[in-house]
Amino acid sequence: MALLFLSTAERAAVWRSVFADAGEEMLVGEEAVSDPSRITHVACWQPPGDLARYRNLKVVLSIGAGVDQIPRLPDGVALARTIAPGIEDMVRAWVVMATLMLHRDMPRYLEQSRHGLWQAHPARPAGMRRVGIMGMGRIGRLAAQSLAQLGFPVAGWSRSGTPVDSVDVYDEAGLGDFLARSDILVCLLPLTDETRGLLDAKLFAQLPKGACLVHAGRAAHLDMAALRMGLTSGRLCTAMLDVADPEPLPADHWAWRKPNLIVTPHVASHTDPHEGARHALEVVRASRAGDPIPGLVDQSRGY
Amino acid sequence: MALLFLSTAERAAVWRSVFADAGEEMLVGEEAVSDPSRITHVACWQPPGDLARYRNLKVVLSIGAGVDQIPRLPDGVALARTIAPGIEDMVRAWVVMATLMLHRDMPRYLEQSRHGLWQAHPARPAGMRRVGIMGMGRIGRLAAQSLAQLGFPVAGWSRSGTPVDSVDVYDEAGLGDFLARSDILVCLLPLTDETRGLLDAKLFAQLPKGACLVHAGRAAHLDMAALRMGLTSGRLCTAMLDVADPEPLPADHWAWRKPNLIVTPHVASHTDPHEGARHALEVVRASRAGDPIPGLVDQSRGY
Ligand SMILES: NC(=O)c1ccc[n+]([C@@H]2O[C@H](COP(=O)([O-])OP(=O)(O)OC[C@H]3O[C@@H](n4cnc5c(N)ncnc54)[C@H](OP(=O)(O)O)[C@@H]3O)[C@@H](O)[C@H]2O)c1
Ligand SMILES: NC(=O)c1ccc[n+]([C@@H]2O[C@H](COP(=O)([O-])OP(=O)(O)OC[C@H]3O[C@@H](n4cnc5c(N)ncnc54)[C@H](OP(=O)(O)O)[C@@H]3O)[C@@H](O)[C@H]2O)c1
Repeated sequence: MALLFLSTAERAAVWRSVFADAGEEMLVGEEAVSDPSRITHVACWQPPGDLARYRNLKVVLSIGAGVDQIPRLPDGVALARTIAPGIEDMVRAWVVMATLMLHRDMPRYLEQSRHGLWQAHPARPAGMRRVGIMGMGRIGRLAAQSLAQLGFPVAGWSRSGTPVDSVDVYDEAGLGDFLARSDILVCLLPLTDETRGLLDAKLFAQLPKGACLVHAGRAAHLDMAALRMGLTSGRLCTAMLDVADPEPLPADHWAWRKPNLIVTPHVASHTDPHEGARHALEVVRASRAGDPIPGLVDQSRGY
Repeated sequence: MALLFLSTAERAAVWRSVFADAGEEMLVGEEAVSDPSRITHVACWQPPGDLARYRNLKVVLSIGAGVDQIPRLPDGVALARTIAPGIEDMVRAWVVMATLMLHRDMPRYLEQSRHGLWQAHPARPAGMRRVGIMGMGRIGRLAAQSLAQLGFPVAGWSRSGTPVDSVDVYDEAGLGDFLARSDILVCLLPLTDETRGLLDAKLFAQLPKGACLVHAGRAAHLDMAALRMGLTSGRLCTAMLDVADPEPLPADHWAWRKPNLIVTPHVASHTDPHEGARHALEVVRASRAGDPIPGLVDQSRGY
C-alpha cells in the first residue's frame, strides 16, 4: 500500500514527515512512481487524467473539505474528503463573523466611514433576527450551535431534515417554509448536481423582503447576476461572500463596488497540512483494516 | 413614591404605559412636578442641576449601562444603572463580531476590496489567538464565554481577579502578565478615576507586538493619539472602536482614514425602553421593600 501525494511542495514536506513517522509509504508526484501497481491511495485537489494506470487504486482523497472539483472516478474507486477540526472551526468562525456583520449593519457603517459620517441606526437584538442555515452537515451544525448561543433563532435545511440538537431542520420539501422564516440565509451546502445554481432569483423571492445572504459554500451555488439584482432592488439588504464567480474576481468587477456586498477571497478556511496528513493516515489504515473510511463520500449523491 | 423621568418623549411613552400598568406613579419632565417632595426616584441620562429640590430623593437611576456621565450625588442618594439582558446581549454580539473581524483580517480584506484585489493571506485558528478581556463584569463574562466557545484561549482582568467559570482572571497586580499574553485586547471596563486613560502608549507597549484592540468601553479610556501612533508603528496591528474622542467624530478626523482601524458610531448597544422601564419598576419596588437595589453602584468605586 502506498499513497501518491499530488499537491504543493510545502504541504508535501509536512505529509512526508507524518507518513515517515507512522511507517507508511508515501510518494510525491507522479514522476516518483516507478511501479504504478503499488499505488492504492491518491491524495490531491484534482486527480491526474490517467487514473487507470493505478490498477490497485482504492481511494482518491480530496485534500479539501469539498469534492465538487473531482470528476467521476473509475468504478470500484472510493472517494473521500478531508475531515479536519481546523477546517470546520475556521469556516464556523467566518460564518459567525459574517452573520454578525450583516446583523449589525456593518456594510452600512463601513460605507458611512468612507464619508466620515458618524450616524447610528436602530439595531435589533439577535433574538429578533432569524438565521437559516442551508446544509446541516459538519460545518452547518457547528455554525448553528454558535449562532444559537449568541441568541439568534436558528433553523436548518438539509436533504434529510434530520433534527440536530435543539435546532429545527426543514427537509427538501420544506424549503419554502424555511426560506420564508430566514432573515439571514447562510449557505453551507456542498456543490452537487442538485445544489448547483440554487441561490437564484426564484429562491431570493421566497425570503422575507430585505433578507441578508451569507455564502460560504461554492461559487457555482450562486447566480451572481441575481445577487446583483437582489441587492439593487432591495429584495436583499446585504450579502457577504467568501466565494465568487469568477475566482479570482477581476479588479474591475461590479461586486467590489457594491456597498451592500462584502467579499473575502475564499479564506473561510484552509486545510492545515498536519491535520490533513493525519486524516490521510487514518484513511490509509481504515482501508487496510476494512473499517469505514473517515470522510467517505457517497458518489451517487455527490457529497 | 414617584419616579421623575427625564429622557426622550419616545422612551417616556413606553415607560408611562409600563408604570401605569403596574400602578406606580411616574412624572415626565421637571415641569410636571408640582410637589418636589413626592419625587423619590429620578431616571435620567444626566441628572438636573438642582437635585436638592427633591428632598425625599432616594435613587438616581441611569437609563444606560454606565454611570460615568453622572456627577457626584448628594449624600444619602443612591446611584443605580440599568441592567437589561438586551444591553448585555448586544454588546456581547458587537464584541464577538469585532474580535472575529480583527482575528480574520477584515480590515486588510476591506482595504483590498477598495482596490479590487483578490488575495488571500494565511489565517490562524482561533486556538492560536489569545484574547484578553479587561473588565469581567456582566458583559465581559458573557463575551468571554462566547469567545471561548469559538475556540479562543480567553483570559480576563478585573480589580478583584475573581475567577469566572473556566476563564483565568488576572487581578490588578497581574496587569503586565495579562497584557503580555493578549493577542487581541478587549476593553469592557467601566469609566472610573482608575480606568480613565488606561489604554495608552505605556499599556500598548506591554502587549505582544502586533496585537489588536477591540474597544467597547468609553472614549475616555483611550488615548487616541497613542492609538494612532501604535497603528502607524505596527506596535498595534489593527483596532476596532465603538467609542471615540470626540463623539461624534468629525468628517475630517484621521480615524476614518486609517485602513487598519474600524470605527462604529457608538452602536454596540442601546437600551430597549421596555426593558429599561421594567428594570426601573424593580428599582422602585426594591427601594420600597428595603431590598437590595438591582444595578446599585458603589459610588466610592465609581461602578
Ligand atoms: N468557503 C470555504 O472556504 C469552505 C471551506 C470548507 C467547506 N466549505 C463548504 O461547506 C460545505 C459543507 O461542508 P460540510 O463539511 O458541513 O458538509 P457535509 O458534512 O457533507 O454536510 C452537507 C450538508 O448539506 C446537506 N445537503 C446536501 N445536498 C443537499 C440538497 N440537495 N438539499 C438539501 N440539503 C443538502 C446535507 O444533508 P443531509 O444531512 O440530509 O445529508 C448535509 O446536511 C462544503 O461542501 C463546501 O461547499 C467552504
Ligand atoms: N459601547 C457601548 O455601547 C456600551 C454599552 C454598554 C456598556 N458599555 C461599557 O461596558 C462597561 C462594562 O459594563 P458591565 O455591565 O460589564 O460592568 P460591570 O458589571 O460593572 O463590570 C465591571 C468590571 O470591570 C472591572 N473593573 C472596574 N474597575 C476596574 C479597575 N480599576 N481595574 C480593573 N478592573 C476593573 C470590575 O472588576 P470586579 O469584578 O473586581 O469588580 C468588573 O469586572 C460599561 O461600564 C461601559 O463602559 C459600553
